[in-house]
Amino acid sequence: MDNNFNYSISVDCVIFGYDSTDLKVLLIKRGEKPYLDYWALPGDLIHPKESIDDSVKRVLKDLTGLSNVYMEQVKTFGDVCRHPLGRVFTIAYYSLLKIDDYTLSPSSFAKEAKWHSINRIGELAFDHNKIFATCKENLKQNVQRQPIGFELLPEKFTLSQLQNLYETILQKQFDKRNFRKKIISMKILKDSGEIQKSVSHRPAKLFTFNQENYIKLKDTGFSFEI
Amino acid sequence: MDNNFNYSISVDCVIFGYDSTDLKVLLIKRGEKPYLDYWALPGDLIHPKESIDDSVKRVLKDLTGLSNVYMEQVKTFGDVCRHPLGRVFTIAYYSLLKIDDYTLSPSSFAKEAKWHSINRIGELAFDHNKIFATCKENLKQNVQRQPIGFELLPEKFTLSQLQNLYETILQKQFDKRNFRKKIISMKILKDSGEIQKSVSHRPAKLFTFNQENYIKLKDTGFSFEI
Repeated sequence: MDNNFNYSISVDCVIFGYDSTDLKVLLIKRGEKPYLDYWALPGDLIHPKESIDDSVKRVLKDLTGLSNVYMEQVKTFGDVCRHPLGRVFTIAYYSLLKIDDYTLSPSSFAKEAKWHSINRIGELAFDHNKIFATCKENLKQNVQRQPIGFELLPEKFTLSQLQNLYETILQKQFDKRNFRKKIISMKILKDSGEIQKSVSHRPAKLFTFNQENYIKLKDTGFSFEI
Repeated sequence: MDNNFNYSISVDCVIFGYDSTDLKVLLIKRGEKPYLDYWALPGDLIHPKESIDDSVKRVLKDLTGLSNVYMEQVKTFGDVCRHPLGRVFTIAYYSLLKIDDYTLSPSSFAKEAKWHSINRIGELAFDHNKIFATCKENLKQNVQRQPIGFELLPEKFTLSQLQNLYETILQKQFDKRNFRKKIISMKILKDSGEIQKSVSHRPAKLFTFNQENYIKLKDTGFSFEI
């Protein structure tokens, strides 16, 4: 079996962030060949004594300085010729983070890191456009069934921000009244008792996500559905 | 980068079949070490010039003689010590097939192949119990959102068979009238014009799945939901 150990395995992360108007993805500019100077998904080879999840956590920590980032394994890509240096399989994850929490941390494998609007990412290195598209579709499916959208919002948010987030991810418009009624009826929001500050329009109520209630509801068979 | 090519990658398949009363999984008895004589998920190492999907198709074809089996990539497992001979990552798939279509085909890597009730599988080789549990949960989620249950039924089936299949996978009871109403209202069944033969009770109508209509409906935004 010894001669079968000829492959290499990496992880690649599609890191989504939301800046109150637009859904973004964090890309790095490659500082080495192949694909020198191309934008790419952040990722790295899995170290010999590291679990898959741990290597994703390492990449995220190196790049953003954050631990405990939401992450989800999506799919493994292994086209025979996807990497010019040999047979490298890559396990794709997506992550969600609040852009405000993010501080750029210089990383050994990246020349530059930057948020890109998901609609303007151009041609990425390797098969990263394909990986990105798969993760984007996966996120779209998942936000409708689990309240993971809250991972992208600041801790306190308005109902308009929440609606805009869903409209941006799902690329469709919701009727304002129906959307609010539906969300409120789920009983997974908590009124923070505060209102928006320094806005030119009439300040709106700020809500937080009621994780505790959501878990209770889930145990009784409640299903989140947008 | 050369010294990074030290890993091996396999695929493992959770093959589900349904025999009109019970949901089963096809396991093989290992003919070699490690885990000699243990029951295991069928799988194999990915060949150097083979895509991931192609290696799954090869395993399924070798084992069942069937091509065009429904398959779905679920998750990649890579615990550091999951394989005693070295670092082997494995990409788990689940497949669905009609038990009647299946003919046992002697395979190079299996001493014996047998259907096991999903509730009585005992201790499997490697981390296969964990892989099996993950795929079972994934199937449970997916049958509620896509009409993949039809992959497990004979081409012509009764509404009772369909209900029993969903009850078995989801491990819950449906009210007979509501279940039928819901399924019929989806307009994805076609009356075959035939009825059951050689049954002791009053023969029931046989239906087929209306794939064409389902695709049309899907294009208009219809979502299958059990």
